[in-house]
Amino acid sequence: MANKSKLFDDAVASLTSLPGIGKRSATRLVLHFLSRPQEEAIDFVQTIENLVKNIKYCKKCHSIADDEICPVCASAKRDQSFLCIVESVRDVMAIEETGQFRGVYHVLGGIISPIEGIGPEDLNIETLKSRLQEDGIKEVLMAISPTIEGETTIYYLSQIIAPLGISVSTISRGVSFGGELEYTDEVTLGRSILARLPYNIDKE
Amino acid sequence: MANKSKLFDDAVASLTSLPGIGKRSATRLVLHFLSRPQEEAIDFVQTIENLVKNIKYCKKCHSIADDEICPVCASAKRDQSFLCIVESVRDVMAIEETGQFRGVYHVLGGIISPIEGIGPEDLNIETLKSRLQEDGIKEVLMAISPTIEGETTIYYLSQIIAPLGISVSTISRGVSFGGELEYTDEVTLGRSILARLPYNIDKE
Repeated sequence: MANKSKLFDDAVASLTSLPGIGKRSATRLVLHFLSRPQEEAIDFVQTIENLVKNIKYCKKCHSIADDEICPVCASAKRDQSFLCIVESVRDVMAIEETGQFRGVYHVLGGIISPIEGIGPEDLNIETLKSRLQEDGIKEVLMAISPTIEGETTIYYLSQIIAPLGISVSTISRGVSFGGELEYTDEVTLGRSILARLPYNIDKE
Repeated sequence: MANKSKLFDDAVASLTSLPGIGKRSATRLVLHFLSRPQEEAIDFVQTIENLVKNIKYCKKCHSIADDEICPVCASAKRDQSFLCIVESVRDVMAIEETGQFRGVYHVLGGIISPIEGIGPEDLNIETLKSRLQEDGIKEVLMAISPTIEGETTIYYLSQIIAPLGISVSTISRGVSFGGELEYTDEVTLGRSILARLPYNIDKE
C-alpha cells in the first residue's frame, strides 16, 4: 500500500502496539475514528487519559479504586478475616466474576520470577505482612497460577504466613468442569489423580 | 463483578463501543494501559487525537492525505486518465494492496441507499463530474460492492458517465480464486455462468 498519510500510519502503529490488535484491526479502528464525528474520538481519548491520570490503587489491597480504599476492603459485607492473595487486578476481577469469594484481596503486583529479575522485594509483600499482623486475618487463600513461578511464590509466602498460625490454602487444581480427560494435559491429569478428592454421595 | 472504579468502567465502555472490541478485550486493554508507564497511554491518546484533528482529505479524490493532494493524485507514475470510483478510503487501501491498479481514485464517501436516506447529493458526485469534464479521464472502473445499493449507485453513475463518451467498466464478479463451487452462493455461481469468460489457452 502506498504510504498515504503519516498521521494514518502513526495511528495504526500505535494501535498495533496494543495486545490483541493486529494491523488489520488497527486499520479498521483508525478508519472508524475517521468515519465518525471528531468529538467521538476526542471523548474516547479523554476517557483513556482520565483513566491513566486519575486511577487510584487501594491502600490496603492494591486493587484499583476511585478512592483511598476500594469498595471490597471498605465493605462490611465482606469477610475481612479471609484474605485471597492474587498476582494482579485481572485476577481479582476474574474471581469477583465467579461470585464465590466473600473475603478480601491482596494484589501482589506480580510473582517471583528469577528469570525476569522479579524478587519478593518487587512485590507488595511488606503491606501483606502488616495486614497479616494487624487485620485479624484467619485464613489465607492463595489464588496464584500453578506455574513454576507461581509455585515458588506460594512456597515463599507460605513460609511467612504459616508461622503466624494463619491457615493457608490454594485454589484446587484438576480437570476443568466440563473438560474431557483425553484433552487434559498429562501433568494436570496426573496430579488430579494424586490429589483425588473423597466422593461425597449426598452432595452430588 | 463489583463496580470497583467508575474510571475503569468508563474506559471499558469507551473501548467496547469500538468495532471488533468486546467487553473482554476492552478489559484487557484497560489493564494493559494501567500496567504500562503512564506516558505510553498518553502517547497513544495523543496519536489518535492528532489523527482526527489533523487528517486531511485529498481535494481531488477525497482519499486521506497529509497534504492538499494525496500521493496517488500527485504521482506522475499513475495513469491520471484511468479513474477508479470507490465507496470509501478502505476500498482505496484494499485495491492499493493488490498492486494491480495504476490509475487514480475517486472516493464517493458512501453509496446510494434509499433505506438509510443517502441520496446522490450526499456523495462526492459534483467533484466527480468536474473531474470527468476537466481531467481528461478516458476510462472509469467502478469498484463498488455488488450489493443492491452498489448496483443502484453503479447504474446512477453510468447514466452520468457514459454520455460523456468515457468507457465504463466494473470489477468482475464470480467465484473467488481458490474458492470451491460447492461453497459458492447460488447467486454468485449462477451469475458466473451467465457472465462466463472466453478461455484463452495461451494465457493459462
